[in-house]
Amino acid sequence: MSRASVGVNRIDHVGVLVPDASAASAQFEAALGLTIDEDEVLEDVGVRLVYLVGQEGHGYCDLQLVEPIRDGPLRAHLNEHGQGPHHVCFTTDDIDQSLLDLDDTGAKVFRGGKGRRACFLSERIGGVLVELIETSTAKPARGL
Amino acid sequence: MSRASVGVNRIDHVGVLVPDASAASAQFEAALGLTIDEDEVLEDVGVRLVYLVGQEGHGYCDLQLVEPIRDGPLRAHLNEHGQGPHHVCFTTDDIDQSLLDLDDTGAKVFRGGKGRRACFLSERIGGVLVELIETSTAKPARGL
Repeated sequence: MSRASVGVNRIDHVGVLVPDASAASAQFEAALGLTIDEDEVLEDVGVRLVYLVGQEGHGYCDLQLVEPIRDGPLRAHLNEHGQGPHHVCFTTDDIDQSLLDLDDTGAKVFRGGKGRRACFLSERIGGVLVELIETSTAKPARGL
Repeated sequence: MSRASVGVNRIDHVGVLVPDASAASAQFEAALGLTIDEDEVLEDVGVRLVYLVGQEGHGYCDLQLVEPIRDGPLRAHLNEHGQGPHHVCFTTDDIDQSLLDLDDTGAKVFRGGKGRRACFLSERIGGVLVELIETSTAKPARGL
């Protein structure tokens, strides 16, 4: 991969693959006081996503619980490796430019969490599965 | 674990276990434009820690590269499981109170990254190895 001229801005969330997001969010709430910021199902992707935040709330890095809702690669990964950290997601202003800069022709852009355009990079970096998410395509903030 | 009355504030960093933090940080810089915010060795813990940040810089969640500098459990983990996400660290105002609330008598408090008091919880949550770090014991910000 070549040098990215459009660098990422910050970490948006850490994705944690779990078999049951309700049970896991209850555990995180009981142990750490985390609360649910958002809870959504992406039918096309086949996942339920539950975003957990600490007392400082939204605007920092979320913990994103990823629960597969049907058989597929994610459920297979869960069955093989068990629950735990799955990916780290960084924000970018322009996902298409980021992929051009990375010369990553294998990454597939999809409509990810919170309505934003997203993709997973084809190659892990430092053993980390990296997701990019385009903040400009986010849904309007709630309450606006 | 019982309910925490002292909840955590936010995610401080995601720890990524790597065999060579210099090589990994170069890869993250080349691919994502991440830059090194801090680079330190904790002799007592036996690790080199390199903190990487995106364009929005410090104040959000860091990517923390963890390089074991001698043989021990971390290097053994690396040899067995390979590089990749290792833990998620949350900030707390009072680490002793958090451990009391959690009734976690097995967690050992140590001097962790950036001079802060830290501990790893004895039990994983949702498959995640959780670190707590006490922000009030941080070193003064550089430049002050």
